[in-house]
Amino acid sequence: MTGLKIAVIGGGSSYTPELVEGFLKRYEELPVSELWLVDIPEGEEKLRIVGALAERMVEKAGVPIRIHLTLDRRKALKNADFVITQVRVGRIEARIKDEKIPLKYGVIGQETNGPGGLFKGLRTIPVILDIAREMEELCPEAWLINFSNPVGMVTEAVLRYSNIRKTVGLCNVPIGMKMGVARLLGVEADRIHIDFAGLNHMVFGLDVYLDGQRITEQVLDLITSGDRSGVTMKNIVDLGWEPDFIKGLGLLPCPYHRYYFQTKKMLDEQREAVKKEGTRAEVVKRLEEQLFELYKDPHLNVKPPQLEKRGGAYYSDAACSLIRSIYNDKRDIQPVNVRNCGAIASIPPDSAVEINCVITKEGPKPIAIGDLPVAVRGLVQQIKSFERVAAEAAVTGNYHKALVAMTINPLVPSDAIAKQLLDEMLEAHREHLPQFFKHRSFVR
Amino acid sequence: MTGLKIAVIGGGSSYTPELVEGFLKRYEELPVSELWLVDIPEGEEKLRIVGALAERMVEKAGVPIRIHLTLDRRKALKNADFVITQVRVGRIEARIKDEKIPLKYGVIGQETNGPGGLFKGLRTIPVILDIAREMEELCPEAWLINFSNPVGMVTEAVLRYSNIRKTVGLCNVPIGMKMGVARLLGVEADRIHIDFAGLNHMVFGLDVYLDGQRITEQVLDLITSGDRSGVTMKNIVDLGWEPDFIKGLGLLPCPYHRYYFQTKKMLDEQREAVKKEGTRAEVVKRLEEQLFELYKDPHLNVKPPQLEKRGGAYYSDAACSLIRSIYNDKRDIQPVNVRNCGAIASIPPDSAVEINCVITKEGPKPIAIGDLPVAVRGLVQQIKSFERVAAEAAVTGNYHKALVAMTINPLVPSDAIAKQLLDEMLEAHREHLPQFFKHRSFVR
Amino acid sequence: MTGLKIAVIGGGSSYTPELVEGFLKRYEELPVSELWLVDIPEGEEKLRIVGALAERMVEKAGVPIRIHLTLDRRKALKNADFVITQVRVGRIEARIKDEKIPLKYGVIGQETNGPGGLFKGLRTIPVILDIAREMEELCPEAWLINFSNPVGMVTEAVLRYSNIRKTVGLCNVPIGMKMGVARLLGVEADRIHIDFAGLNHMVFGLDVYLDGQRITEQVLDLITSGDRSGVTMKNIVDLGWEPDFIKGLGLLPCPYHRYYFQTKKMLDEQREAVKKEGTRAEVVKRLEEQLFELYKDPHLNVKPPQLEKRGGAYYSDAACSLIRSIYNDKRDIQPVNVRNCGAIASIPPDSAVEINCVITKEGPKPIAIGDLPVAVRGLVQQIKSFERVAAEAAVTGNYHKALVAMTINPLVPSDAIAKQLLDEMLEAHREHLPQFFKHRSFVR
Amino acid sequence: MTGLKIAVIGGGSSYTPELVEGFLKRYEELPVSELWLVDIPEGEEKLRIVGALAERMVEKAGVPIRIHLTLDRRKALKNADFVITQVRVGRIEARIKDEKIPLKYGVIGQETNGPGGLFKGLRTIPVILDIAREMEELCPEAWLINFSNPVGMVTEAVLRYSNIRKTVGLCNVPIGMKMGVARLLGVEADRIHIDFAGLNHMVFGLDVYLDGQRITEQVLDLITSGDRSGVTMKNIVDLGWEPDFIKGLGLLPCPYHRYYFQTKKMLDEQREAVKKEGTRAEVVKRLEEQLFELYKDPHLNVKPPQLEKRGGAYYSDAACSLIRSIYNDKRDIQPVNVRNCGAIASIPPDSAVEINCVITKEGPKPIAIGDLPVAVRGLVQQIKSFERVAAEAAVTGNYHKALVAMTINPLVPSDAIAKQLLDEMLEAHREHLPQFFKHRSFVR
Repeated sequence: MTGLKIAVIGGGSSYTPELVEGFLKRYEELPVSELWLVDIPEGEEKLRIVGALAERMVEKAGVPIRIHLTLDRRKALKNADFVITQVRVGRIEARIKDEKIPLKYGVIGQETNGPGGLFKGLRTIPVILDIAREMEELCPEAWLINFSNPVGMVTEAVLRYSNIRKTVGLCNVPIGMKMGVARLLGVEADRIHIDFAGLNHMVFGLDVYLDGQRITEQVLDLITSGDRSGVTMKNIVDLGWEPDFIKGLGLLPCPYHRYYFQTKKMLDEQREAVKKEGTRAEVVKRLEEQLFELYKDPHLNVKPPQLEKRGGAYYSDAACSLIRSIYNDKRDIQPVNVRNCGAIASIPPDSAVEINCVITKEGPKPIAIGDLPVAVRGLVQQIKSFERVAAEAAVTGNYHKALVAMTINPLVPSDAIAKQLLDEMLEAHREHLPQFFKHRSFVR
Repeated sequence: MTGLKIAVIGGGSSYTPELVEGFLKRYEELPVSELWLVDIPEGEEKLRIVGALAERMVEKAGVPIRIHLTLDRRKALKNADFVITQVRVGRIEARIKDEKIPLKYGVIGQETNGPGGLFKGLRTIPVILDIAREMEELCPEAWLINFSNPVGMVTEAVLRYSNIRKTVGLCNVPIGMKMGVARLLGVEADRIHIDFAGLNHMVFGLDVYLDGQRITEQVLDLITSGDRSGVTMKNIVDLGWEPDFIKGLGLLPCPYHRYYFQTKKMLDEQREAVKKEGTRAEVVKRLEEQLFELYKDPHLNVKPPQLEKRGGAYYSDAACSLIRSIYNDKRDIQPVNVRNCGAIASIPPDSAVEINCVITKEGPKPIAIGDLPVAVRGLVQQIKSFERVAAEAAVTGNYHKALVAMTINPLVPSDAIAKQLLDEMLEAHREHLPQFFKHRSFVR
Repeated sequence: MTGLKIAVIGGGSSYTPELVEGFLKRYEELPVSELWLVDIPEGEEKLRIVGALAERMVEKAGVPIRIHLTLDRRKALKNADFVITQVRVGRIEARIKDEKIPLKYGVIGQETNGPGGLFKGLRTIPVILDIAREMEELCPEAWLINFSNPVGMVTEAVLRYSNIRKTVGLCNVPIGMKMGVARLLGVEADRIHIDFAGLNHMVFGLDVYLDGQRITEQVLDLITSGDRSGVTMKNIVDLGWEPDFIKGLGLLPCPYHRYYFQTKKMLDEQREAVKKEGTRAEVVKRLEEQLFELYKDPHLNVKPPQLEKRGGAYYSDAACSLIRSIYNDKRDIQPVNVRNCGAIASIPPDSAVEINCVITKEGPKPIAIGDLPVAVRGLVQQIKSFERVAAEAAVTGNYHKALVAMTINPLVPSDAIAKQLLDEMLEAHREHLPQFFKHRSFVR
Repeated sequence: MTGLKIAVIGGGSSYTPELVEGFLKRYEELPVSELWLVDIPEGEEKLRIVGALAERMVEKAGVPIRIHLTLDRRKALKNADFVITQVRVGRIEARIKDEKIPLKYGVIGQETNGPGGLFKGLRTIPVILDIAREMEELCPEAWLINFSNPVGMVTEAVLRYSNIRKTVGLCNVPIGMKMGVARLLGVEADRIHIDFAGLNHMVFGLDVYLDGQRITEQVLDLITSGDRSGVTMKNIVDLGWEPDFIKGLGLLPCPYHRYYFQTKKMLDEQREAVKKEGTRAEVVKRLEEQLFELYKDPHLNVKPPQLEKRGGAYYSDAACSLIRSIYNDKRDIQPVNVRNCGAIASIPPDSAVEINCVITKEGPKPIAIGDLPVAVRGLVQQIKSFERVAAEAAVTGNYHKALVAMTINPLVPSDAIAKQLLDEMLEAHREHLPQFFKHRSFVR
């Protein structure tokens, strides 16, 4: 074994320095020899900036990792051991549309939920499936570690529509929840364990443990004792929770649950925020521009602390930790997105779920929970229905499937609004949705 | 065999003449000898009016059915062969509250859906379970045929919380859909067959047949070709459907699906209607007063045609037809609410579903459909989660369970509004919800 | 509609006169205009004899059905409405081997169970799948009604390995059980109803009804009150049942259950019988020769009564009755072999089961039973495992799969005997198992 | 925390020194302060001998564990943290009968399989359920770790018929298989990992790994390359496997699978062995007498090496290792018997399975495998059916249920032999089966 080859698709992302840092920290256990950063022509400049920073970081660490920058994806994939996908089809401009257009119709505009999430899925899934097909040819034994949102929908699509079996979807929400709980309790994060189960961005903490002891009720009391829950993401406003509801539920919700259990409040908040500072995508755009300014500094040779504000904290740490455990057959427990295999009874066994898994050299194996509590089963199943119809629409480019997906999404208030939203968004994203425009205009 | 004894709980209902007519029409096949109409003291006057009409109808028909009027439920149940429950706990006044209070919070106020449906369930379930317990003692071999809404939630509760195994929930929505399709096509209703599956007030026509031949697509074209679908109920405004959505769905929705797929439009419509003529409950109240005026006429000895406007068309016909088929081991197919038994894969096998059944002397046996299409599975599962939590709240009187039920209902926009609604409605219906006030005020 | 075209593959079978009689009896409801009898060159003589009898029968009945005799299967399939398959790959000689070879190893030799059933499946499945492929091309809308044993394994194979969705497997065991019960009770068969569920030749009567009233216990008492159960098939010796076992089971077993619950006795009986009169196949061979002698009689123009001894009583009646109900959208209840669709919880939803179905123009729809009693679930599941592995071996010609199928069959006493049996039987049937000899000798 | 209290029911067992050794080895991680050894009056002498040895072992180790010997089970259970049950109802004499009587009927006589296993279950289950009831009262937070065979049937009974939720069934077969594979490969056992799934004494190695790398095929080649598989138990003769069968299966069978896949050979072997040296129980009886002679030696203060011959190697190690991981929330992977929870799709979610689990402070959590390969699913399901009916018979004392259990056991050749076996064995074990003789003689 001469060291691992890692290919990062979307390597010009502002997150990449965290990823590099993750590999540097774990070099002893995870001997990466080649790190390929790939991007598309439009991203070439960013790729060069990030790549140069990555090289300075490697040099500072003094480990023999070679950084390769390329626009040729096939070269990067050839014989890779792990392929990390962190693509943003349509770039930040597309996200701005995903967040703005729904608002016009009185609907939450969000990157991974509602109409915005649907369209991000419609754009992203075909690209990831293309990568999967190339992997079958160029690195059939490699693992596909997907970060690209909407991770739930993308993982569902990879499981159903590609031949790649070695695939994991990864999200920073569970690790963020664990960190949030640790913060609330004022303890080290590694003393906290959470039984995670659900779907991506729709995951619940079934139980929370401190040093192995159940402390679920105490944690639920804590997150409902103030105006804010304290367990959230940078990109989701923390409105707190109705204490009696959380007590009745008996579960730790994830930050994204607010969109479903506090729909109206979240919409009102979004409207306010957009007035003040633009959409979250516009905020992120500015943050990224600042980050890239920093990255250009030829003296910078570490991940700058400002990156944490970006919202994706722990993402890369989760990824490196996962790769490390697969490579070393660690058999530790991590929450990832994989085929359900019966671990959650009320989700089809062949669908993607986000769940605690034992991470082995042969991949993550989900820990069976029996079933989700009745009260949340229905919402989770509804999102799974949505994800499946959306994935089918993304693959087939079928207009009617896309309309059904839009209408059954719980954030969309009617079939008529769904159609208006769909038509306007298809037009807006036309360039990145060739599957819907193959034969003719989508307009019937 | 000396003829059947039928007990009708809620016998003073304005629907009773249709039921009587149904038994008279079928006397040859269904030899009823005793028809017991039971009501509570507050309903005594109506019971006398309806009872007198029933007696005139029987006399006109010249069949040896004996009508018994009583306020003593146990007497009516004793040795009954069939027990029909059509109760309205809290009477029409409670329904007016169910429809009005939600509107104040910007939420649809509806008899069987949303917060109104939840509260109708909380009031009705304990009463039906009481009747079930009395049946165990007084007529353990009898069939419990429940009409009382919300039929889905009530059937779920009877299956889970009583020992009565011979029970069927009955609704006029499927037969109404069949009649509507026949009307649209201009054919006799008995040439139409629909494969029904789903939940009560959440049932789909998976396929529609004319003389055994599939005509689903043609029917879907018809219901989407104008402003109105033509397939609806008296109590639900017909806003038509978005044709592309229905085409994508490929299923015949039931009228109540509008509340979920056209939430915003339905809310707007309700607000308009309430301004003009009051809530539906208030309209019904006036209709009922007129009906009872008619019923008082000592020359009236048939079901008056005005009853059809009332909204419950075919209800009693469905009931008599069901009883007839059970009694005669007919083995014909009727859509009813029973234990799923695996007939719909994505609903728990021990939950209530509304589905086509073969009606035998041993009761209805559901016809397995495999599964619902992915696109509608999630919504149906979500309503099932709601029904189960609601039934548990009704039985236990647990405030937190009731709040969870309210919050997870898809028509309720947030946990905070759910709590306000719950608190106000609990107070408004206090008299009919003793289980929530047993020990102390529900207010925590 | 100018009348139906029916194609009978294996038309030279001795059963054909019963089939013809069935169509003649039902001509009013089932207007057959063309009946094509197809056979292979080796069966040409029998085809001519049976065909001539069929023509005399039609002439006597005076209905406009045209009989076509052909060796050209494609011609018969072209535009057929129903295709009936009653093939016997390897003819009676192969069955003689299936019954004799196992006996040498101390194993029951039986047409559809144990090693003999496995080999009948290995020979038959590829032929039926060929017919299914031709149907896709020549009569894609036709129904494939398969009689060819082993019906369970063949139906499993058609469901899993062909594109034909309109397919039913048919067996005379359930109707035989119903007739047997009627005989025991001394009542007309149409007053008896049995809730059938299980697999082909592994079906149980869950409950028995007389005029819709459960009489299961009485029937179980009757079948265990003497030396013989009275409910059996011509080809299965009736050894009675241990009364306490049947009482504990609470189910009506089918005659083939004896092979599993009375394995030793059945083996001893078979050995005795073979000494006296040869194998059942040899008895049948003689019976068939006598039948064909009768069929040759130019004055014979009805089904001769001697045919009933042959063992396949009611087969053709079941087939004609099924076709009639499909054609007329009868929606009556018949036990047939179809995709499970969740009707029996412990069998995979996509596997073949034998179960009561509602027979519609769109085909049979299984009635959900929930689940089989725990006590019999395991055996049924084991046979299903066997059928699935056997079907896979038949399709792939994989030696190891065939050995696994042989070893897991409950009638085979060890892996070593399984291998000996497999090797000898593969050699004996070599001519009819080209899939196992494609590339090279099967011997490793 | 002042140290753990462990109660060992059946503390006079010859295995106890291994258990003591296990606790001594792990004292650092598992601070046991009190070890209570309980037995029944008939076992008092053995209890004193073993107890004295245990005290000498503790003294030698120099750790502050206090040994308590008692015949008062309630005293031992009071406030225990872990309860270990290793009872043998009817002692070795009952096992001799279990092994001898079946042989008279040409049926394998075995401690945990076939008729012997059934009767061991009928005797043991009521005793374990009594202990569980006492635990509810005396130590409701304790874990019940059951070794008593038949572990599968006992665990099924505890899950279904007791209120104890903290329960694990433990067996040395999986660890023995792992050790066997390590021996064959000549590597350290901790480099081997096996994916175990199935039932107790019916468990399969789905895949075998060396240092995380799949080596399943190599291991299957090894175990089939000679006359003996090399992976077996002391008490099960190793007849090797038919190589083509194992290759077709693609799984590592457990030693007990021989009874099902090599039934005839195993029966012949048993007959030979019994002629030569008596039943296994008689051999064990002699071994135990020798062991107790050794234990009496006042100079012995370690576990004597002769114990390993006894057949239960690794049992106690498995138990101590499990307790250690629960106590320390280790989250390592161990194969144990627990509620399935969907981990194996074709076994009911509420049934006991033997499967790899993550061992946490809240107990073992099964790792979902999806499903067993089709080929073995049926046999596993059949044994589960048998276990469930047997457990029901044990609890109810219902003669007919017991007969059904006996008849459906795959090792029993007919309903008639089942009845003879049942009647003779009920009589032979009458003293230990009060539930079958409560009201009257079992003879009907």
